[in-house]
Amino acid sequence: MTVRIGVVGTGAIGREHIERLTRTISGARVSAVADIDAALAEKAAAAAGGARVAADVPELITADDVDAVLVTSWHAAHAEHVLAAVAAGKPVLCEKPLATTADDALRVLAAEEAHGRRLVQVGFMRRFDPGYRELRRVIAGGGIGRPLMMHCAHRNRTQGERYTTEMAAQDTAVHEIDAARWLLGEEIVSAQVIMPRATDHRFPHLRDPQFMLFETAGGVRIDLEVFVNCQYGYDIRCETVGETGLVRLPDPARAEIRSAGRVGTEIDQEWGGRFAEAFDVEVQAWVDSVADGAATGPSAWDGYAATAVAAATVEAQRTGAVVDVNLAPRPAFYA
Amino acid sequence: MTVRIGVVGTGAIGREHIERLTRTISGARVSAVADIDAALAEKAAAAAGGARVAADVPELITADDVDAVLVTSWHAAHAEHVLAAVAAGKPVLCEKPLATTADDALRVLAAEEAHGRRLVQVGFMRRFDPGYRELRRVIAGGGIGRPLMMHCAHRNRTQGERYTTEMAAQDTAVHEIDAARWLLGEEIVSAQVIMPRATDHRFPHLRDPQFMLFETAGGVRIDLEVFVNCQYGYDIRCETVGETGLVRLPDPARAEIRSAGRVGTEIDQEWGGRFAEAFDVEVQAWVDSVADGAATGPSAWDGYAATAVAAATVEAQRTGAVVDVNLAPRPAFYA
Amino acid sequence: MTVRIGVVGTGAIGREHIERLTRTISGARVSAVADIDAALAEKAAAAAGGARVAADVPELITADDVDAVLVTSWHAAHAEHVLAAVAAGKPVLCEKPLATTADDALRVLAAEEAHGRRLVQVGFMRRFDPGYRELRRVIAGGGIGRPLMMHCAHRNRTQGERYTTEMAAQDTAVHEIDAARWLLGEEIVSAQVIMPRATDHRFPHLRDPQFMLFETAGGVRIDLEVFVNCQYGYDIRCETVGETGLVRLPDPARAEIRSAGRVGTEIDQEWGGRFAEAFDVEVQAWVDSVADGAATGPSAWDGYAATAVAAATVEAQRTGAVVDVNLAPRPAFYA
Amino acid sequence: MTVRIGVVGTGAIGREHIERLTRTISGARVSAVADIDAALAEKAAAAAGGARVAADVPELITADDVDAVLVTSWHAAHAEHVLAAVAAGKPVLCEKPLATTADDALRVLAAEEAHGRRLVQVGFMRRFDPGYRELRRVIAGGGIGRPLMMHCAHRNRTQGERYTTEMAAQDTAVHEIDAARWLLGEEIVSAQVIMPRATDHRFPHLRDPQFMLFETAGGVRIDLEVFVNCQYGYDIRCETVGETGLVRLPDPARAEIRSAGRVGTEIDQEWGGRFAEAFDVEVQAWVDSVADGAATGPSAWDGYAATAVAAATVEAQRTGAVVDVNLAPRPAFYA
Repeated sequence: MTVRIGVVGTGAIGREHIERLTRTISGARVSAVADIDAALAEKAAAAAGGARVAADVPELITADDVDAVLVTSWHAAHAEHVLAAVAAGKPVLCEKPLATTADDALRVLAAEEAHGRRLVQVGFMRRFDPGYRELRRVIAGGGIGRPLMMHCAHRNRTQGERYTTEMAAQDTAVHEIDAARWLLGEEIVSAQVIMPRATDHRFPHLRDPQFMLFETAGGVRIDLEVFVNCQYGYDIRCETVGETGLVRLPDPARAEIRSAGRVGTEIDQEWGGRFAEAFDVEVQAWVDSVADGAATGPSAWDGYAATAVAAATVEAQRTGAVVDVNLAPRPAFYA
Repeated sequence: MTVRIGVVGTGAIGREHIERLTRTISGARVSAVADIDAALAEKAAAAAGGARVAADVPELITADDVDAVLVTSWHAAHAEHVLAAVAAGKPVLCEKPLATTADDALRVLAAEEAHGRRLVQVGFMRRFDPGYRELRRVIAGGGIGRPLMMHCAHRNRTQGERYTTEMAAQDTAVHEIDAARWLLGEEIVSAQVIMPRATDHRFPHLRDPQFMLFETAGGVRIDLEVFVNCQYGYDIRCETVGETGLVRLPDPARAEIRSAGRVGTEIDQEWGGRFAEAFDVEVQAWVDSVADGAATGPSAWDGYAATAVAAATVEAQRTGAVVDVNLAPRPAFYA
Repeated sequence: MTVRIGVVGTGAIGREHIERLTRTISGARVSAVADIDAALAEKAAAAAGGARVAADVPELITADDVDAVLVTSWHAAHAEHVLAAVAAGKPVLCEKPLATTADDALRVLAAEEAHGRRLVQVGFMRRFDPGYRELRRVIAGGGIGRPLMMHCAHRNRTQGERYTTEMAAQDTAVHEIDAARWLLGEEIVSAQVIMPRATDHRFPHLRDPQFMLFETAGGVRIDLEVFVNCQYGYDIRCETVGETGLVRLPDPARAEIRSAGRVGTEIDQEWGGRFAEAFDVEVQAWVDSVADGAATGPSAWDGYAATAVAAATVEAQRTGAVVDVNLAPRPAFYA
Repeated sequence: MTVRIGVVGTGAIGREHIERLTRTISGARVSAVADIDAALAEKAAAAAGGARVAADVPELITADDVDAVLVTSWHAAHAEHVLAAVAAGKPVLCEKPLATTADDALRVLAAEEAHGRRLVQVGFMRRFDPGYRELRRVIAGGGIGRPLMMHCAHRNRTQGERYTTEMAAQDTAVHEIDAARWLLGEEIVSAQVIMPRATDHRFPHLRDPQFMLFETAGGVRIDLEVFVNCQYGYDIRCETVGETGLVRLPDPARAEIRSAGRVGTEIDQEWGGRFAEAFDVEVQAWVDSVADGAATGPSAWDGYAATAVAAATVEAQRTGAVVDVNLAPRPAFYA
């Protein structure tokens, strides 16, 4: 059986997923695409090797030739498109964030629970990265004892003018927020943001770097450097310290070069390369789960929790204070 | 278009490739399998999700529902099965070795040249490993100057009783033989084998470890430690030293653990995990090349050269002397 | 010329310094020792190969056979003994801390300034560690751009029952406080302490680990994990992030071992081994400076600043708030 | 007691040792120096802070104000100067080589044995390097099982015009020859040299790089790349492979820098920095042993064996063949 995918949104990430579904993923093909920009949609459909352009998003989501939906529209529309897929009873992979507000995310939870079984997977691809998976295996296996602290860094080479101070929480830190919840198996209960001396290599409206602090329900403290104009490359660090040891996310395997008085390796410049394998594994796992009829991976609850923590972090940016995260009670449906 | 693959041989590696073609590779499916062991063939066909069991190998190779052939039969039959595929004008991916004798390999070259265009790819998967690819890119880009030496090691945790001293050349060193030819762009012209003090962790009939020395047409010297009962894991080392620097194959990216007085990472225990990504990329590239109608990757010439060098290495094991490799002239067809 | 050293205090660190001055350092010998515990003093004097036991500390400090004084008495007496050395016009190396209160430290500053030239060096040995020196050279040379953040960790395997929550600031973090001031060339202006989930591997009265945050006058943010019962070893991390790059303190050079499915190195268990070379270089530099008649190295001002920041950190431990460090104006004498 | 050292030879290495003895080493001072070049000797004596210039070498060696002799004269005179020291019954530290011919080295052995107790230490400083010491400790402790192979490299950035093909064996490889004997506890019984493609970055008379192969009495195989114009830095590699694991000499601890798309560290450019600590430890151990009246460290036998293996290696350079090393029987005196 080949799973027929309808793709909502044919921007950069949408086109990457279409390429992936067409050339890399086993057991799937893109059958339809939808985008407000008709020219973009035509181009994407052609790249998929014979997909059609849907009249609009509702038509695509409800169409007979669409078994499952991949949402890569603009962030503000994510919740609406996911709700439409749930209403149609179709599995949906939604790029993060699930929603831009906690209320919208809660609407997705309610709809999915009403539907009666899981349909939604949120695109936190790091859960599919081999390095993160090894972290989780080591922690879960007791290799470092009970976790006490996490030290993280999320560094991009540069960001363009559209990137805002809030996006450091909503778009960037959200990856570490989900990864920490997943690695530790605990919810985050508070957020704080400290602003170090700012780099000059940024647009004036942006606070960069930012130093974020989170606490989990069990008292684990997480610190996260977000530095999106670090100049030297794309660099992700994650270290979990437990009662008897620590485990650290590996750097990508790169050839060591000794030359001109230095020994070292190259560093990735863009995030796409760093997590290319994670994206492949993520989408293949989603396609397999669609074929098997059982959603797996990061759930709508995970999407809701990440959105809620990111919202608290944005408030912490503004106030400078420690901001509590007040999650709704977790439905038994997501236990 | 979905490429329909016929698989010849359903032993361990055949079954892995069937699993890969069925669950991981995009644009292909296994349509038929053949094996002398009918029960094994039935099981493999079922695992492929609806492939049929062919009456015999010739029937499979010539069948209408087979677009391309994957040869994973026993080594002594490789050449015969590849020749049948070439006779049928079908693309064929043959696990290494292409042939067990240089003469058989030459017959494949002659047949393919007579056919008039490339049909054969030999399964040297390291050419598809990201680490080896980075080595090649650095060397070709002048990052270490003109190459002068290579230092390699090929270590397995253990080998079973069937593994022989000759297999250290034919089955083990053959990977480094091909990788060196590919990285350096030169043929190997001589081989020598030195026998260090033997490990006690081996079956008595086996010389282990072995220290092999190769020379290329341009005078590059390659040394290779083959140690197939090293006990500690599966470990592949490759370092190329040039006039101005050196480049070294990376170890796999593994999480660093600090615990109990030690800092370090785990080491792969089996070769399958170490090169899993390389196998995926290799087979996907082959499927893509079949769909595109143009063979790429390691050629029958590469398979012939590796077999010839391995044969010289076996002679060097026996004699202790430096043994010349006398390759047939390279046909313009393979230029 | 051989510098004759009088050692005040013959506890564990005092005896180590006596051994060092006797067997490792060039151009010095221990001529006299003093300790309240006469038996301990006798033993230390014998170990120095012919030093005498002074009647008391004042006698030692003023004696004709003492050119310079090394203070390794108990912390509360440091300031008194340093003041006595300054009164006698003799160079003095005082183990950290210079004083247990900022007021006592200010008395040392006043006395030294009144004397008219520098006599005091404080024992912050990390400034003499090759790794820290390389950090400083890279930062000062512009290799990472303007510094914005520092991420540090100070981990001990275990601490005994006498170790208190306050000592995490006064005895442990004080090393990073001085190192940060020295690496960045800026004073620290505030301190905050966050208490993560506590380890069970500690005495009940102790908060462990602690997560400390400092800010410099220029806005650089420093975070420091203090974890004194981490179980796995003695481990010091220091990473400075600048506008264009980062530099990280190296782990000690240790032989890589591949064995039993793991690759890695040993980790130091005790701090003595980790900084043995730094202590040697520190004491040799002090002896050389005494012979040259010109004090160098960490000054009384550095000792004062570290004590003041540590005091603010202790207050931050108690209050949970951000505590300002209000340093006295820096005398031109220490410019 | 201060050991009074007479230094024979005030060239570059002699002056370094004089500086070391004067400023770094505890318990010693340079009392006299001798050199054919009187001006050089005067300068060196002044640098030692009050040493005298001896009339000639015999006068220095027999003088009452010389307790022990450090030989750093030109290589061809080493044996003569060591023999004079032995004749005078004085401890002597001789820079490698002990002698330029095996016969001369045997004369030293005979003289020392006739004297009745050890007086001679040969300057193989690597035995005092912390990294090599850790290698030895791991091997001796059974951490890798019984050794089977060693892989070594000795790379210099460049060498001047005076450096000859023979010196690659006599002056360069001699360090690895001694280190291998010491690490493995076995004599080397044969040598072979293979000449890879030569680098263009060399003077035309020089073969560079060279690939050397040694065998020990127990069958351990040692390979050594000597590459003295590698351009990128001074780089020493040593890896010992045993039946159950391997251990590798660490690179020096250097700060990791992430900048401009690369992560890495600097590489030493000159050998002096790489082994500075080893030289300090070596000379301090020698001075201590002189004070204690009992020679330790690499013996005259070690010096003889290294010279004999180097001579065989030179013959192997010329003939291309495997050359046996025929050592004289080891006197019980050196057991």
